[in-house]
Amino acid sequence: MTDDADIADGKVYLVGSGPGDPDLLTVKAKRILEDADVVLHDKLPGPDILGMIPEEKREDVGKRARGERTSQQYTNERMTDLAHEGKTVARLKGGDPFVFGRGGEEMVYLAKHGVPFEVVPGITSAIAGPGVAGIPVTHRNHASSVSFVTGHEDPTKEKSAVDWEALAATGGTIVVLMGVGKLPDYTQALRDAGMDPKTPVALVERGTWTDQQVVTGTLDTIVEARDEAGIEPPAVTVIGDVAAERQNVLAFLENDRMEDQS
Amino acid sequence: MTDDADIADGKVYLVGSGPGDPDLLTVKAKRILEDADVVLHDKLPGPDILGMIPEEKREDVGKRARGERTSQQYTNERMTDLAHEGKTVARLKGGDPFVFGRGGEEMVYLAKHGVPFEVVPGITSAIAGPGVAGIPVTHRNHASSVSFVTGHEDPTKEKSAVDWEALAATGGTIVVLMGVGKLPDYTQALRDAGMDPKTPVALVERGTWTDQQVVTGTLDTIVEARDEAGIEPPAVTVIGDVAAERQNVLAFLENDRMEDQS
Repeated sequence: MTDDADIADGKVYLVGSGPGDPDLLTVKAKRILEDADVVLHDKLPGPDILGMIPEEKREDVGKRARGERTSQQYTNERMTDLAHEGKTVARLKGGDPFVFGRGGEEMVYLAKHGVPFEVVPGITSAIAGPGVAGIPVTHRNHASSVSFVTGHEDPTKEKSAVDWEALAATGGTIVVLMGVGKLPDYTQALRDAGMDPKTPVALVERGTWTDQQVVTGTLDTIVEARDEAGIEPPAVTVIGDVAAERQNVLAFLENDRMEDQS
Repeated sequence: MTDDADIADGKVYLVGSGPGDPDLLTVKAKRILEDADVVLHDKLPGPDILGMIPEEKREDVGKRARGERTSQQYTNERMTDLAHEGKTVARLKGGDPFVFGRGGEEMVYLAKHGVPFEVVPGITSAIAGPGVAGIPVTHRNHASSVSFVTGHEDPTKEKSAVDWEALAATGGTIVVLMGVGKLPDYTQALRDAGMDPKTPVALVERGTWTDQQVVTGTLDTIVEARDEAGIEPPAVTVIGDVAAERQNVLAFLENDRMEDQS
């Protein structure tokens, strides 16, 4: 642990990788990945983006040697130590660093330990995944708001911090990140909250990756559709009338990385 | 109007420009802007990005000659006609094409009129604006969800389609796009819905632009802070405990395009 009074000579970039297609990296993120001394990452940016980074400057902080997860504390200390050694560090995160990415916690830790940092936003898969599948998360006629929640909550929390009833009451689109496993729970919670069981739902697995998969259904049928198509994490769930737009455009949608399972 | 049965030889890319910093264009968006025959745009991508596009292939569909707004119908027809003439068209939109951008409507029109299209997601200012100001829209300890709404609704709607009470009840962060003018209305609506008047609020004007401005306050004080700082559209409003994080990191935040007014 460094002395809090010292200001580091190095710097940390909190970089969003976007949804996984290297073409959807920002110009800035691409340059930082090229110029950084060290890139700290987990698996979420995906194989295509990680494959662009020279092996010798990559450090996987998503796993440890014996398969245990690296602690957040380890990642925080590693970033800080490298910056105090004068290194330029890219802390690469899937999507955007501040959308369910713990970027907020890392930023506060860095500031507390004298490390200058810069935020480099990325495209969140919560918008891009549906988008490249022909699903707009908002629509003038269908959805005046969109809410993003995570289906994969901190397991130390005693009960769900997500108020599904309030989300249903907004009348807007709901996008669930990391929501494959708990799909039966929250689709039930939303029906219990009075949402129409016929509400369109789409699951977008690995949105923008070459092995992208999309399935569509309703609050009532999507669990079965998930199981039939074998949808696996990482995926985002889109709940709301906008999910039905896909069928209106599919014949002309040319996002070439996608496989269609609808 | 083209014959619906014809399939166009050209193609339309629905491209998100990101929040305004040209460095936050995606690699793909940059290439498409370079390669397109025509770029249809309005003012939202901002002067730096529009300035990168050769004058001769830009068409401003945001304004008509005598200062009237171009109708959505005109834009739809123009995209379609150009594609049927065999042109490669970039329909450039501020932020992401599917976050309050009418991209959903345009996509359906294109598909209906035989135009192949591709969606190129961009970074929404709703995430990047707060992000570069040191405000994470979600936080493990403060916000399990984030909701995006627009403060600038379709004026033909009789009453607000946004249910502020339901949004307040989610307990998550609320981000209002295009919400400078109606700030007094919805901060009042949120207090009426029982939200703590001390809830932190930040306004980020022209996030990531060279003339970015940020002001912070609470539900009770933000209208006065807006007026004192002279915050003008375009700006995003962030409502929730996360807005207070900025003060914890400001001394080490090096996003160099920003001016600090907090």
